[in-house]
Amino acid sequence: MTTAQVGIIIGSKSDLEVISACVDQLEKLGVAYELIIASAHRNPAKVHDWSSGAAERGLNVIIAAAGKAAHLAGVVAAYTPLPVIAVPIKTSDLGGLDSLLSMVQMPMGVPVATVAINGARNAAILAVQILGVADADCRQRIIDLKEQLSQD
Amino acid sequence: MTTAQVGIIIGSKSDLEVISACVDQLEKLGVAYELIIASAHRNPAKVHDWSSGAAERGLNVIIAAAGKAAHLAGVVAAYTPLPVIAVPIKTSDLGGLDSLLSMVQMPMGVPVATVAINGARNAAILAVQILGVADADCRQRIIDLKEQLSQD
Amino acid sequence: MTTAQVGIIIGSKSDLEVISACVDQLEKLGVAYELIIASAHRNPAKVHDWSSGAAERGLNVIIAAAGKAAHLAGVVAAYTPLPVIAVPIKTSDLGGLDSLLSMVQMPMGVPVATVAINGARNAAILAVQILGVADADCRQRIIDLKEQLSQD
Amino acid sequence: MTTAQVGIIIGSKSDLEVISACVDQLEKLGVAYELIIASAHRNPAKVHDWSSGAAERGLNVIIAAAGKAAHLAGVVAAYTPLPVIAVPIKTSDLGGLDSLLSMVQMPMGVPVATVAINGARNAAILAVQILGVADADCRQRIIDLKEQLSQD
Amino acid sequence: MTTAQVGIIIGSKSDLEVISACVDQLEKLGVAYELIIASAHRNPAKVHDWSSGAAERGLNVIIAAAGKAAHLAGVVAAYTPLPVIAVPIKTSDLGGLDSLLSMVQMPMGVPVATVAINGARNAAILAVQILGVADADCRQRIIDLKEQLSQD
Amino acid sequence: MTTAQVGIIIGSKSDLEVISACVDQLEKLGVAYELIIASAHRNPAKVHDWSSGAAERGLNVIIAAAGKAAHLAGVVAAYTPLPVIAVPIKTSDLGGLDSLLSMVQMPMGVPVATVAINGARNAAILAVQILGVADADCRQRIIDLKEQLSQD
Amino acid sequence: MTTAQVGIIIGSKSDLEVISACVDQLEKLGVAYELIIASAHRNPAKVHDWSSGAAERGLNVIIAAAGKAAHLAGVVAAYTPLPVIAVPIKTSDLGGLDSLLSMVQMPMGVPVATVAINGARNAAILAVQILGVADADCRQRIIDLKEQLSQD
Amino acid sequence: MTTAQVGIIIGSKSDLEVISACVDQLEKLGVAYELIIASAHRNPAKVHDWSSGAAERGLNVIIAAAGKAAHLAGVVAAYTPLPVIAVPIKTSDLGGLDSLLSMVQMPMGVPVATVAINGARNAAILAVQILGVADADCRQRIIDLKEQLSQD
Repeated sequence: MTTAQVGIIIGSKSDLEVISACVDQLEKLGVAYELIIASAHRNPAKVHDWSSGAAERGLNVIIAAAGKAAHLAGVVAAYTPLPVIAVPIKTSDLGGLDSLLSMVQMPMGVPVATVAINGARNAAILAVQILGVADADCRQRIIDLKEQLSQD
Repeated sequence: MTTAQVGIIIGSKSDLEVISACVDQLEKLGVAYELIIASAHRNPAKVHDWSSGAAERGLNVIIAAAGKAAHLAGVVAAYTPLPVIAVPIKTSDLGGLDSLLSMVQMPMGVPVATVAINGARNAAILAVQILGVADADCRQRIIDLKEQLSQD
Repeated sequence: MTTAQVGIIIGSKSDLEVISACVDQLEKLGVAYELIIASAHRNPAKVHDWSSGAAERGLNVIIAAAGKAAHLAGVVAAYTPLPVIAVPIKTSDLGGLDSLLSMVQMPMGVPVATVAINGARNAAILAVQILGVADADCRQRIIDLKEQLSQD
Repeated sequence: MTTAQVGIIIGSKSDLEVISACVDQLEKLGVAYELIIASAHRNPAKVHDWSSGAAERGLNVIIAAAGKAAHLAGVVAAYTPLPVIAVPIKTSDLGGLDSLLSMVQMPMGVPVATVAINGARNAAILAVQILGVADADCRQRIIDLKEQLSQD
Repeated sequence: MTTAQVGIIIGSKSDLEVISACVDQLEKLGVAYELIIASAHRNPAKVHDWSSGAAERGLNVIIAAAGKAAHLAGVVAAYTPLPVIAVPIKTSDLGGLDSLLSMVQMPMGVPVATVAINGARNAAILAVQILGVADADCRQRIIDLKEQLSQD
Repeated sequence: MTTAQVGIIIGSKSDLEVISACVDQLEKLGVAYELIIASAHRNPAKVHDWSSGAAERGLNVIIAAAGKAAHLAGVVAAYTPLPVIAVPIKTSDLGGLDSLLSMVQMPMGVPVATVAINGARNAAILAVQILGVADADCRQRIIDLKEQLSQD
Repeated sequence: MTTAQVGIIIGSKSDLEVISACVDQLEKLGVAYELIIASAHRNPAKVHDWSSGAAERGLNVIIAAAGKAAHLAGVVAAYTPLPVIAVPIKTSDLGGLDSLLSMVQMPMGVPVATVAINGARNAAILAVQILGVADADCRQRIIDLKEQLSQD
Repeated sequence: MTTAQVGIIIGSKSDLEVISACVDQLEKLGVAYELIIASAHRNPAKVHDWSSGAAERGLNVIIAAAGKAAHLAGVVAAYTPLPVIAVPIKTSDLGGLDSLLSMVQMPMGVPVATVAINGARNAAILAVQILGVADADCRQRIIDLKEQLSQD
């Protein structure tokens, strides 16, 4: 029952700060996750192994966050049939426009679901919306979250 | 059994040309859909009614395509707990950068899953990946599609 | 006599800092206003109700300020025949280019009157210029303001 | 009774093609206008004379369309207390981003109401929305237009 | 003999900080200047009077610095046959891209000589290069400056 | 008396089409010029020789046009004390933004006077404005040109 | 002696048109190459196998051309110690800015050597410059090419 | 044996901070280098002499770092048959987009190998990858570095 449904992958330790909002939101929504740090460029084998086994491990959605020439989400998507959510990380020079375009402009056949620059919390919400396709509890938690946000 | 699982919404008739690649891909993947033309700005009531009833009608994923100040995906996402995929449409002046930013940079609480500019076919694939969370057939069709694309 | 003529709407509490220059300028120009905080995405019903009743309540101009994928001005404009002034709010990653394009590039039929990024004070001046079409006092205050600015 | 209420100014004859959609829309909405061709840079005296006398001639709103380093709307706004609507014209090199930023980023004290790149028709609608502040007929025509657009 | 040869115009007091590098360089190069603060939008009459009399007062080059929708250089150029150097001032939101495009993209017939964003010192050097066309002393000072810079 | 006063340098034969508007305007203004084709990257020695001898040959102003990573104007400016006007050439991929930034953003000490993308005709006018500092005939021709443009 | 020294990889058949200038230039410079079509996203295993064996097969330099979210060069660089040259391909919507940023902004540890958008011929020249580090013939051919280009 | 293989050139002393990561990495990889400070615009003769003698001095690769209208890498490449790596330096106004485009968009015939904005460390790694074409030790050090990075 506490099997991870969402897999989170980030390219380096320095991305932990951004992704913490994602982790917090998943925990508030009661969804189990696993988190791995692996760079598409420095640890390609680790990314390959983690991604290609994701569906078999029972994950249903993947969230990948990376910055600059952010290939991580696309590389993961190449190895798995699961939906992959991409979080472009803000960069100090181009503000994250590089991360955004490197993620969202995926070529034909291998989409990733891109959210806003540094949109880690929204990535968690989108992941649970996707889980809600199969899981009435998840959908209800989204409905409750929307209700709560409308009253803030 | 032919109940639509994917709802497609576009802002104007002129967007039909872009969205046809999405429709074709859904048909190839054997997924039923419904399609509506309604502008978030010119037909807000129609968009509201269609979106807020989407989950009840049995839809599981929504695809929204629009151009320029492309609010359609965000407005739909405000009214439904379903995951919403956004297709930014290329514009003749700014190339679609306006459509892209208007879609992907959603504020906290209401994400949309943005694909590439004019990425209508990828939107269909992403929708079926999402359906695959609940439906082994859909996941298998994605696995088959990935296999086929690798051999083209 | 103190019926609000200008309605101000912002997407979140954090936008109050930017909009304060607008409020100050309206007060200096002696124009009554009402202010509401409501997100187009998190509180769509509240935005709908406030916007669609704006003309009936006696408002003559609306100012909407929002950031990122800034749909607020466009959503309000969909529900009211009143002129809507849009203030794109500066963002920490793209500097407000996202807010600007999300506001100014409105599709055919539903314009918004966009001012500069963080141009809250100018939004107030534009609102009073618009009121000046019907109200000689307002026009005179604009003439006086222009005279005063020319001497600073 | 057929006194022009809207003044239209464009920077060169080549801008007539873009502005024709504005003229057409004003005619459909039954609003009288005057049109002048004068460049802020090549005919500054003509622009000055036309702008500074606009209010006295009975104009209530001005629409200025220009491209590239598009100073026309700002220069007109410097000379009149009337609200000025700016239409940035698409350029062959930068797509109109230059025109847009040259218009919308007006400094403190002198706003212009910017619409989309090549948004000539929307400029006309916005002008009539502004006239609607003083004129119930104009407001009604906007309400009718919105109704009609919702049914297209 | 100390008649000003270079006229400097800035849009507001806040631009003094940027322009000080220009003033310092002119002083080091021994070229007399006059400096005025006048906004093209808030003080159009002052800009007109100063610009249209510039040649008669004996000025040979003008330097105009402004930010955002930076019309100042173009407006000055409309009123004088003198060469006008434009200094786009960095902006807090778009980094000065708005100022740059508003200055450099001047339409046919009325050029301005644009230097880098915040390039105030270079504007002074360019002004003295231009004076060097008529004045062997100025040209020699540029040759000396280039020699000195090559040794720093 | 027909000694060239303006030197024109372009990076390749394909730039002749853009520069022809410059040549035409100089001829209309009765100013003699010399024209050379030499790339800063493929013919650095030729550019060096032509530039470093320009002042001695009697040239008073240089116009350099180039595209993409457009170093030509800056390289010429490194070798001459004369004022250098830069014409960024439109590119098929980035519209000339690359050419513009490569020219205008010159570092401290070595300015170039940048005009609009493809602004070849304006470069000619600016060159004659600069010559007008020393030559009353040139200044008069600019005054006449401005008069004529105001009547077109 | 005809062992390939340069490996060329492109993401899809449609990239053959751009890469032909690279192939032509390599042939003129007398350098043997091998060419493969494989997408980083659709054929990740093929890209992996080809890249990780490249050094062993005797390749010394790799050229990777791709468009949009162009991950190909980075993915190849993750698998090989060889220098990888990246050719960003022009895109119909963003002009290739997306391809460029997706290639050049590689994170720490795994560089790629990026050339201009559609700079296929320059990629070939750069490859031979790199081979010239080990091979005096290659260096001489570059010297000859530079000589020839200086005379065109 | 300690003959410099890599030549590093930067445009000004202020670039030393960015280039230090390059120097550190070269030292860690045991590759000798020489470092020179010379601006393409303020010291063209120094750049010419250093560049045109680089191959004869035994250098095999050049790294050039510069900001703004960053011509340094291109100017060096014009004078040498060696491969030239370009490091665009982040700028305070445009974030380094100006530096990047000024470097990467080199015209036909004279490529430079551009790395990320401020990618000084990656420039060092790329230089050693290039040396690895001729030197098995260098290649092995890259293999070792990749192994080490994969374990961080």
